[in-house]
Amino acid sequence: MRRIVIVGDGGWGTAVAIHLARKGLEVGLWSHDAAYAEHLRDQPHEPAVPAGYEIPRAVEISADLRALLPRADAVVSAIPTEFLRDVWTRHGALLPPSIPVVSLTKGVEQGTMRRPSEILHELVPDRPVVVMSGPNIAWEVAKGFPAAIVAAGDDAGAVHAVRTAFSNGKVRVYGNRDAIGVELGGALKNVIALAAGLCDGLGLGHNAKAALLTRGIVEIARLGAALGGERRTFFGLSGIGDLMTTCYSPTSRNRTVGERIGRGERPEDVVASMAQVAEGVKTAAPVRELGHRLGVPLPIVEEVDRVLREGKEPRDVVEALMLRGLKDEAEDLL
Amino acid sequence: MRRIVIVGDGGWGTAVAIHLARKGLEVGLWSHDAAYAEHLRDQPHEPAVPAGYEIPRAVEISADLRALLPRADAVVSAIPTEFLRDVWTRHGALLPPSIPVVSLTKGVEQGTMRRPSEILHELVPDRPVVVMSGPNIAWEVAKGFPAAIVAAGDDAGAVHAVRTAFSNGKVRVYGNRDAIGVELGGALKNVIALAAGLCDGLGLGHNAKAALLTRGIVEIARLGAALGGERRTFFGLSGIGDLMTTCYSPTSRNRTVGERIGRGERPEDVVASMAQVAEGVKTAAPVRELGHRLGVPLPIVEEVDRVLREGKEPRDVVEALMLRGLKDEAEDLL
Repeated sequence: MRRIVIVGDGGWGTAVAIHLARKGLEVGLWSHDAAYAEHLRDQPHEPAVPAGYEIPRAVEISADLRALLPRADAVVSAIPTEFLRDVWTRHGALLPPSIPVVSLTKGVEQGTMRRPSEILHELVPDRPVVVMSGPNIAWEVAKGFPAAIVAAGDDAGAVHAVRTAFSNGKVRVYGNRDAIGVELGGALKNVIALAAGLCDGLGLGHNAKAALLTRGIVEIARLGAALGGERRTFFGLSGIGDLMTTCYSPTSRNRTVGERIGRGERPEDVVASMAQVAEGVKTAAPVRELGHRLGVPLPIVEEVDRVLREGKEPRDVVEALMLRGLKDEAEDLL
Repeated sequence: MRRIVIVGDGGWGTAVAIHLARKGLEVGLWSHDAAYAEHLRDQPHEPAVPAGYEIPRAVEISADLRALLPRADAVVSAIPTEFLRDVWTRHGALLPPSIPVVSLTKGVEQGTMRRPSEILHELVPDRPVVVMSGPNIAWEVAKGFPAAIVAAGDDAGAVHAVRTAFSNGKVRVYGNRDAIGVELGGALKNVIALAAGLCDGLGLGHNAKAALLTRGIVEIARLGAALGGERRTFFGLSGIGDLMTTCYSPTSRNRTVGERIGRGERPEDVVASMAQVAEGVKTAAPVRELGHRLGVPLPIVEEVDRVLREGKEPRDVVEALMLRGLKDEAEDLL
């Protein structure tokens, strides 16, 4: 692969563009907003660039996908879940035939509960979709800190090509055949990150938080398996790895929401104060419902949803989780 | 169970004594040092009490095991690995017959690479041994913060009795049949904690650290399986759970050693400056050797040992780990 076009100018898309350009690839970066694209071109080291990244001059930044796409060997879809359907409905026809589409979106579609790769298969069919996910704080990758990512998809050739294109001495890309599991890990972890934030806000300490994360990933894995993923995937980089990064990094949006609620703010006030709704807030209720429908017990997700929508006290959540009957860990560890 | 005697007055043993006494059990706490036992009795809230815990007056503190043991329904062995054989060689004969022995020791015996429960089976035979391990910072349990622990052993009745005795609304005890896996997780994680410390000391960020922990537990699980444990156990509370607590809590001794080396201090100087050698420093070399002998690849352990004993630069370790050939995650995820 020589030319890769990143569709989406958010933090992660921009970081990946910088990483690939630094590797010497020809990189295009699409913004839906012409004015912002121009701004990025003119002032790549301004604070307005997400998180202060510096975008190499070689990156071709444009709001015109027609100009960027023609010679692309692969496209990276880095669109937030809520805009994904709209962007690819409008622009899908521009994609060159049969090139791999790399999906970086972490989430599930509201209402349909569809995974981003399912939406891509629907809107840009006949292209291999490669899902990439892992413990990746965007600005660290943009700054050239070491990181590991997982690439997964049905087309082994496309996965291999993408891994080779993305890997260097800083970024190590692992393969995984279980695209469903890899994708669901990134989407479902956000509810657990909210719970971890509650734990931080209540000042419950490291023991409770580690127990919560460890039991949380078991819960996610249980649901993920019922949705067609493999349990073991959730114990890898795109599962527990991503969950750790999200829950121990002070800047994660979902963890922060939980922390503020744990400290005593009302959920509706926290949500109202944020420019962008944290993914976990949107997914807690539908994930809980999904668990009910599939008969999968999700005690942590249930309690988070009760705090968010039913006014349950965060402190009572911990008690509810600790006082359940004693059980064997092995039953649901994979 | 009504009466439980804790053998060992270190941080974890004392915390467990406080927890059990708070639950209303009759608790004995043995110190090998009569003067220290007296001190603990007289000034249970002095800073000299480990980490400033307050020991309830009801706890019977003594250096005389003969006085403490007779009516005990269970004994908790909370002795550091290096003194375990000596203590039970000298005092094993005092143990009432057939009562459960709960082992809290995390480590493996130098030279023999034996697990603490194996040493107990050898020195106090014919008693069921229940291994307890998990993400447990001692002072948090002493202060009554919530925590989860795993109890494992061959005697299901003894495991059940111990779980019931230890559980309340704060401490939740999970069962697990795989005593070998539970015990090895606590011993082997210390080498990975050293690597996580290197990561912190080098300032490599959250992405690298989460990747290291996720891949580290895969490595531990691989070795643990070769030693008779079940892989999945290492992805539970006593594996990845304990590893997270150790690696994200600023006070962990092993993590701190790694951090100081990562910042540029020489390994021998760091070790010389510490009152007690960090467990991971002692186990890195024998664990590496064990991997060689059993044909189990342990890339992270190897690199840690190279830093500790061969003067390898911490920064080169990361490069060595990142530049290995691309591989599939699934191959060794469970």
